[in-house]
Amino acid sequence: MSKHHSSKAEPDEIPASVNPHLQKRKRAHFSTEVYIQEILAQNRMMLSRAMTLVESKRLVDRQQARAIVEACLPHSGQSFRLGITGVPGVGKSTFIESFGLRLIEKGHKVAVLTVDPSSQLSKGSILGDKTRMAQLSVHQQAFIRPSPAGQSLGGVAAKTRELILLCEAAGFDFIIIETVGVGQSEVAVHALTDFFLLLLLPGAGDELQGIKRGVVEMADMIAVNKADGDRKLAAQKAKTAYQRALHLFPPKPSNWVAKAVICSALENEGIALIIENLTKYQEQTSKTAYFEKHRQKQAIHWFKQSLKESLLARFFDNDEFNTKMKLLEAEVGHGLISPQAAVEALMDKML
Amino acid sequence: MSKHHSSKAEPDEIPASVNPHLQKRKRAHFSTEVYIQEILAQNRMMLSRAMTLVESKRLVDRQQARAIVEACLPHSGQSFRLGITGVPGVGKSTFIESFGLRLIEKGHKVAVLTVDPSSQLSKGSILGDKTRMAQLSVHQQAFIRPSPAGQSLGGVAAKTRELILLCEAAGFDFIIIETVGVGQSEVAVHALTDFFLLLLLPGAGDELQGIKRGVVEMADMIAVNKADGDRKLAAQKAKTAYQRALHLFPPKPSNWVAKAVICSALENEGIALIIENLTKYQEQTSKTAYFEKHRQKQAIHWFKQSLKESLLARFFDNDEFNTKMKLLEAEVGHGLISPQAAVEALMDKML
Repeated sequence: MSKHHSSKAEPDEIPASVNPHLQKRKRAHFSTEVYIQEILAQNRMMLSRAMTLVESKRLVDRQQARAIVEACLPHSGQSFRLGITGVPGVGKSTFIESFGLRLIEKGHKVAVLTVDPSSQLSKGSILGDKTRMAQLSVHQQAFIRPSPAGQSLGGVAAKTRELILLCEAAGFDFIIIETVGVGQSEVAVHALTDFFLLLLLPGAGDELQGIKRGVVEMADMIAVNKADGDRKLAAQKAKTAYQRALHLFPPKPSNWVAKAVICSALENEGIALIIENLTKYQEQTSKTAYFEKHRQKQAIHWFKQSLKESLLARFFDNDEFNTKMKLLEAEVGHGLISPQAAVEALMDKML
Repeated sequence: MSKHHSSKAEPDEIPASVNPHLQKRKRAHFSTEVYIQEILAQNRMMLSRAMTLVESKRLVDRQQARAIVEACLPHSGQSFRLGITGVPGVGKSTFIESFGLRLIEKGHKVAVLTVDPSSQLSKGSILGDKTRMAQLSVHQQAFIRPSPAGQSLGGVAAKTRELILLCEAAGFDFIIIETVGVGQSEVAVHALTDFFLLLLLPGAGDELQGIKRGVVEMADMIAVNKADGDRKLAAQKAKTAYQRALHLFPPKPSNWVAKAVICSALENEGIALIIENLTKYQEQTSKTAYFEKHRQKQAIHWFKQSLKESLLARFFDNDEFNTKMKLLEAEVGHGLISPQAAVEALMDKML
């Protein structure tokens, strides 16, 4: 919470997630106007509560969340949105800690959001994330929030997009979206962010076992992390190999040429160079107006994506439809019926 | 037409596409039973007519097509399905000609289908394709069919899948699906085939301008074509570079290690090695049962894909829905409304 607002804090305003004793108590209700006013005044606690409304499954909460997000929309967009991925063990938390603190030194306000639909994290994971990033999590200029649990990837991603807008309205000008690097979530995060950073380990290829195919091509930059001590030479070699491989990819729509670098989050080495490159990316793509156009395209992409998901949910949330579909799916898998015929059979039944 | 059936040919049975004078005459009608019997008897002309039914927009044709495809289903699946892509100029036609003739020498029956939703080809393009592959197109053991025109990619791909089944039932045991390499169609073709071959030109990277990002990662093999004359050295260098780059990708679910090779379709060099690799791929993935499992997954993928498209078409084919959607899309693009709110607004209006 910023100093400006700390005097306002009342017991009721402490997020339940931070104080487990409050979890079972009825949450205080604030008007939409209060939410908007407090978020724009950079009240972190009210930002956190608004996020909880966005993630809520209650219709009344979602309606209020929608009004809040709409009001925040004109105050959003002024941040750099960075996607970071890498397999567990690559040192993402240490990297984000080191990277985030450096950004704060340079005058940024940093929000870290995590997208991980596979995790069954409860609210308790906030503490987990805070332990992972010990200094960043307690910093007044930083805000860390894990992925909403128990939702589909599409749902998580759509909600994460709303969380980004809220963070921006609350004055955060550098948003980091972290993902685990092993699932489908990278594609979603790529569609949420301006720049996509892939963290890899020294070893040139061996550590790609867990990375989803296609992720390497989405990367705007590959950073070979843990380039310290004995691993520095291996990291340098890996960097050279990735650099060559990146040159063999088709050019990106942004015209940005993806680079490979080495870094050591532990020793705080190479972080500044990465930040320099992000600045360069923003300057270059702003000049060509790609930066703004790309964001517009992303917004339209999310609109269409969410629209399709909402429309399909009308069918797929129907038990009768689902039962029939599963039966036909099994028949298709066994080659008893062609996919097209199965579709027609199901459509006939539902009409 | 195979010798076995040539005696049966009557004027009415000549496909209209081959004889333009017949195009305006009413097409003879055959019973579903005749279609099935003749396709299984490897009557190429009746195969061609059944394909026209699959591609037809008339409901009555589609119903008959559905019955024919279902009856052919138990007789399908015994082929190798190869996807080939590459930018215009890479020499795809010459490659398929040389490659297809070699397969026929080895005892295969080869069908070539083209997926290109961007082309506005009329039926006349059959002649175009036949000119492109002069020897293959007139060969008794080969069958060439272009993409159905004027349809969405989803539609083209779904129909191509039915065409594959029909070709297999008609005894073709090697199906080549050709795509142009510059659009979205590679992803669809990848989901239709067992093996994905990317043709590139000597030059290591320069010629990737036209290739869609992600296509390189989908490739099971990269063949640097036109490795003849002056270009042989450049092709060899490009091969080495791609080979290294392919090693830096995550492993494929098939456990197949993608390779780079050189070839010259013009001089018929390197074609045999590619065929050897395909055989090796089939042996290797059959041993692990991946080959069969992958096809089952593909069938289920197409079922779900077609189902979603059919369900969404109910909305997107509605003019009122479309008009409202376009208005909201413009608002989303200008940042006047958030994507989520736009979806909710549209859903509210349609309910």
